[in-house]
Amino acid sequence: MDAPYELIYYVGVPGRGEHVRLILEEAGASYTDTASLAMDECREVVTKTLEGGQGNPPYFAPPLFRHGDLLISQTSNILMYLGPKLGLAGSKESDAWRVNALALTALDGLSNEVHDTHHPISIEIYYEDQKEESTRRSREWVKTRLPKHLGYWEKVLKSEKSGKGSWLLGAEFTYADLVLFQCIDGTQFAFPKAMNQAKESGKFDRVFQLWEDVRARPNVAAYLAREKRQKYDWGIYRYYLGNDVSLE
Amino acid sequence: MDAPYELIYYVGVPGRGEHVRLILEEAGASYTDTASLAMDECREVVTKTLEGGQGNPPYFAPPLFRHGDLLISQTSNILMYLGPKLGLAGSKESDAWRVNALALTALDGLSNEVHDTHHPISIEIYYEDQKEESTRRSREWVKTRLPKHLGYWEKVLKSEKSGKGSWLLGAEFTYADLVLFQCIDGTQFAFPKAMNQAKESGKFDRVFQLWEDVRARPNVAAYLAREKRQKYDWGIYRYYLGNDVSLE
Repeated sequence: MDAPYELIYYVGVPGRGEHVRLILEEAGASYTDTASLAMDECREVVTKTLEGGQGNPPYFAPPLFRHGDLLISQTSNILMYLGPKLGLAGSKESDAWRVNALALTALDGLSNEVHDTHHPISIEIYYEDQKEESTRRSREWVKTRLPKHLGYWEKVLKSEKSGKGSWLLGAEFTYADLVLFQCIDGTQFAFPKAMNQAKESGKFDRVFQLWEDVRARPNVAAYLAREKRQKYDWGIYRYYLGNDVSLE
Repeated sequence: MDAPYELIYYVGVPGRGEHVRLILEEAGASYTDTASLAMDECREVVTKTLEGGQGNPPYFAPPLFRHGDLLISQTSNILMYLGPKLGLAGSKESDAWRVNALALTALDGLSNEVHDTHHPISIEIYYEDQKEESTRRSREWVKTRLPKHLGYWEKVLKSEKSGKGSWLLGAEFTYADLVLFQCIDGTQFAFPKAMNQAKESGKFDRVFQLWEDVRARPNVAAYLAREKRQKYDWGIYRYYLGNDVSLE
């Protein structure tokens, strides 16, 4: 299919759309991105696109991705669609399923769980109206979940599968590495104190090395340096002083 | 591949493993299920299988699914792997991506969000130690999120894509219908008062009709009647009197 790749996502935050940008940027693929529109216009396009049509059902939330007649939602789904096309889902056909499992696990643990530290009661009400619960959840999350997640990824990187390679599937770089990079990057923004302590503990050296190694990949580095890279702000990863707790 | 299908999941709750059981049961496929083991033995198998090996990375949590050399985790990933093999992912190749998007949306909204109503602060501490926050989250969830989710699914079922068929993709039954069924079924267990009110409101007739229609499919009906169907209890869907609030 020669149709263009079209990312439909909100402007103003990296959010879940950032994972789609990273896979396209790493591959050097050309794509359109509604984040280049003015905020009102962008919102209008997102709302209209969510309606589906032309053989597609309505979808619940962006990111949305269009390729010809196909319109799909859900971050992991979009990545899984693009992975093999862009050569970033492993070399064996069966690797695509392993890569999707790893990507989903990173998105669950280090994106959804982190998001919910600032909105534990409801995403439909303001942070300020659930501040107390947010602080409690942050404290618990940093104490028990953060070490569990970092420990899991360290184990993957030291496992027989990953072996002596730098990446989650060993010598082969895949989009799961990009997803984990973005999740670690965002978690550092939200919990700088705990993440610095985790880094200095020496217990998760392979995880932080992966973060460095992804940043250093030429296409990723060039993208991160561009203005197009959205700043963290009011999205998934937010910094609140009261939530910036220490690792035990 | 003639290798057997093996589901590796905890015994004692339907949980996320139930989605995998439903697709296999609907298709009449044979499979092994660690839920038939004694509880201790089952836990041991789950823990050991999470380690990966033989070309597979370690995984974070069950359900796990083995098919020959391939071992994968993540509910939506397992379903997407099985969907086309069992003829339950639509007839066009591109439908698999639409079905996965719908399945992920149901799992996010009516499984993960419902789970978090009883564990809003942390899944690492007891419900009793986050009871107050749980009641608050339940109230907010029923008020704003439940109608939003039910309204979304009603819209899908009335859309151009679904049209006059009974199912999410119209005339074609797919595993997304099974996922939505299980999510509605569990949400009815957790929030019977609000779900009864939703049903009686007449605003979501297509959604509740889908629940009925899936239940009535011969293989599903036979499975639901068997002892093998695990009871809701301490898993994703729990009933707490204090959380059983009314729809506004």
